Amino acid sequence: MSDFSAADHAWMARALQLAERGRWTADPNPRVGCVLVRDGVCLGEAWHVRAGEPHAEVLALRAAGDDTAGATAYVTLEPCSHYGRTPPCADALIEAGIARVVAGASDPNPRVSGCGLDRLRASGVAVAVGLMAAESERLNAGFFRRMRVGRPYVRAKLAASVDGRTAMASGESRWITGADARRDVHRWRAGSGAIVTGVDTVIADDPALTVRDVDGDFVAPRRIVVDTDLRTPPDAGLLADERGVVLVHGGTMPAREADRIHAGAELWQVALGADGHVSPKAVLEALASADINEVWLEAGSRLAGAWLQAGLVDELMIYVAPHVMGHQGQPLLTLPGLDAMSDRIALKWLDTRRVGHDLRLTMAMRDDAEEG
Amino acid sequence: MSDFSAADHAWMARALQLAERGRWTADPNPRVGCVLVRDGVCLGEAWHVRAGEPHAEVLALRAAGDDTAGATAYVTLEPCSHYGRTPPCADALIEAGIARVVAGASDPNPRVSGCGLDRLRASGVAVAVGLMAAESERLNAGFFRRMRVGRPYVRAKLAASVDGRTAMASGESRWITGADARRDVHRWRAGSGAIVTGVDTVIADDPALTVRDVDGDFVAPRRIVVDTDLRTPPDAGLLADERGVVLVHGGTMPAREADRIHAGAELWQVALGADGHVSPKAVLEALASADINEVWLEAGSRLAGAWLQAGLVDELMIYVAPHVMGHQGQPLLTLPGLDAMSDRIALKWLDTRRVGHDLRLTMAMRDDAEEG
Repeated sequence: MSDFSAADHAWMARALQLAERGRWTADPNPRVGCVLVRDGVCLGEAWHVRAGEPHAEVLALRAAGDDTAGATAYVTLEPCSHYGRTPPCADALIEAGIARVVAGASDPNPRVSGCGLDRLRASGVAVAVGLMAAESERLNAGFFRRMRVGRPYVRAKLAASVDGRTAMASGESRWITGADARRDVHRWRAGSGAIVTGVDTVIADDPALTVRDVDGDFVAPRRIVVDTDLRTPPDAGLLADERGVVLVHGGTMPAREADRIHAGAELWQVALGADGHVSPKAVLEALASADINEVWLEAGSRLAGAWLQAGLVDELMIYVAPHVMGHQGQPLLTLPGLDAMSDRIALKWLDTRRVGHDLRLTMAMRDDAEEG
Repeated sequence: MSDFSAADHAWMARALQLAERGRWTADPNPRVGCVLVRDGVCLGEAWHVRAGEPHAEVLALRAAGDDTAGATAYVTLEPCSHYGRTPPCADALIEAGIARVVAGASDPNPRVSGCGLDRLRASGVAVAVGLMAAESERLNAGFFRRMRVGRPYVRAKLAASVDGRTAMASGESRWITGADARRDVHRWRAGSGAIVTGVDTVIADDPALTVRDVDGDFVAPRRIVVDTDLRTPPDAGLLADERGVVLVHGGTMPAREADRIHAGAELWQVALGADGHVSPKAVLEALASADINEVWLEAGSRLAGAWLQAGLVDELMIYVAPHVMGHQGQPLLTLPGLDAMSDRIALKWLDTRRVGHDLRLTMAMRDDAEEG
C-alpha cells in the first residue's frame, strides 16, 4: 500500500514486536501492541498483557504522559469502540489529542469491525488501516478464526522417526524426540488456550497436559479430553489435581453415572459424528464458545488423523527424530479409506527448522486450488 | 594448520571448485583440481576431466605455458608418482620448475600414499599437505572409501510422504515427489558409478536406471540389479537395451540356464548371507572390484532396509513430499526385529533443503559414540 511510508512500516513492526510479548498472557484477548510517535520520536509504547487489564493503547498513553497532542498511534489491531471490561480505546486516543491512527488489522469481530475507526474519523482523527495486517492476523490466528467462523485455530503436534513411526512395535515411545523438542512443545502449549488429547492417550500415558519448564508468565491452557464414551479412568491424574479438566463426551453414558464417576471433571456433551465418535467440528465449536482461540492437539494417530481428515487441522507440527524405527512401529496418522494417489491429503510447508537434535516440520493444509 | 596462509586457503578453495567440475566425468578416477600461482597471480588452472585423459596438474601446466618456474601448485589430491594411463604428475611438476606444492589430501591408495610427495621433496620442491583435506575427501568419498576399505560409498535414495509412506495401499506410487525432485535424482545418478536396485523393483516398475534430463556430460553409471535367484524377467527393458546391466546373484540357478535366460546381462555371482539373499557386503565388494566409487541405491523398502541394517548405507536421502498418505500406505523401510527403543537405528542430519515442492533430508548413520 503506497499510503504507508518506510517509517510507518518501521513503527508498526515495533508495535508487532510488542504485541508478540503478550503471546502467552493475553488469552483469550488478541495480542496487540501500540507505539505513539511524534516527529520521529517514540513517546510511549506498550502491549496488552492480560485480559481485564488495560489495552495496549491505554498503556502506551500512560507511558507517554500528558504530552501526546498531534502524535500518531501505531496499533496492530483496530482500537475498540465498546465498553467491555475496560473503556473504549478509541475515546482514550481522541481525548489524548492523537492526530493520526495507523491500524494493522481491522477488528475481526463482526459486531465491532470498523466501529473504532469510524469513531476516530468522526472526531477528526486521520485513520489508515491495513499496514502489516497479515502479520497482525497471523499473530492472532486463533482470535481471528474464532471471531470469524466460531472455531479455534488448531495445531496438531506429532513426534516421529524419519520413517514416520511414533512408537516401536512394543508400544515403547519414550522418548522419541530430545529434550529441546520437548521444551519447545511446552512453549507452544503456553501460547495455547487449550491442550486437547484423546481418551486413549489418557488411558495409555496418564498425561498431565500442563505447561512445564518455560521462562515467563502464561495463562494456563484448559485441559481437554475428547472422550466420546467417558472412558477416562476415575484414577487418572487429570481428574485428581485442582487445575481442572474438561471431558468432551457424546452423551452415551447416563448423566448421573457420569457425574458420579468423573466428579473432578467438567463434562461437555456435544454432537456425535457419523462414525459414532464426537464430531470434531462440534468439539471445536464448544471450545470456541469457551473463548479458546488456539488449540494444541497432542493426541494419538486416530484422533489426529480424524481431525486432519475432517479438514480441521490448521497446522501440522511434526518433530522428526534422527532415528529409523522400522515398519513394525506405529503409524503417524490413522487415515481410513486413502487408497489411491488422488486420495492423499495435500499439505504446504510453512516452516522447517532444527530444534536441538530433531527437525521440526510445520505444514498447513493445502487447498486444491493452490499450486502443488 | 598454521602452516597455511589465507591466500593458501583461497587458492585451494579455487582448486576444489575446479575439482567439482569433474563430478560427473572423472569416474572412476578421483575429482581433482589444480591451480598454479606465482606472486599472487594465477598462471594456469585445470581439473581432471576424464579417466585416460591428463590429470589436473598436467592440464594446469599446459594452460600456464612455459613460464612456471618458481610457482606454487595447489592441488586437491597428492600428485601421482606412478605410471598409470598417464605419466606421473610429480615428475611433470618437477620438470616445470614448480617451487612449492600444496596438496589437499594424501592419496588414499595405500600403495602410492606419500610417494608423490616424497618424490617432490627429493627433488627439492617444498611440500605441504593437508590443506582443506576434509573437503577434498568429501568430494571423493567413494574413491577414498574404495581405496581404503574396498567398498563404494553408498547413498540410498527414498521418496515418501510426510508420514513416511512410499506407496498407497493400492500400490500406486507415481509420482510421490515433484518434477524438481525427480530432476535432482537424475543429477545424483549422473555423479554415481552405479545405480543399484532390487529385482522386486525391476518386476514391479521395469525401470530404465539411466540418467535423463541433465545438463552436461557424464559417465553413464553401471546398472546393477540385486537378484539373488535371478528372477529378472527375460522381457525386462534393462536386458533389451544396449547399455548393459549386471545381475548380481547367489548362484542358486544353474549357470547354463541363467546364461540362456539373461542373455543380455552380465552375471556376477557373490556370496549368500545368512538370510538366503546375496550378502550386501559381498555385493559392495564386487562393485568396488569393478572400480565403482559411488553407489546410488534406488530400491524398495526391503533392499534399502537390509543394507541400512547391515550398516552399509553412508547417506540416506529422503525426498519428502508435502502429502499425507495414511497408515495403509507402504512403509519406507522394512527392518525386521526392531522391537524396543534401544533397537532404533541412529542417524545424524547432514543436510535439509527444499527441492521444488518437496523437502530433501540427507542423513548419515550415527556411531553410538557420537552425541545424540
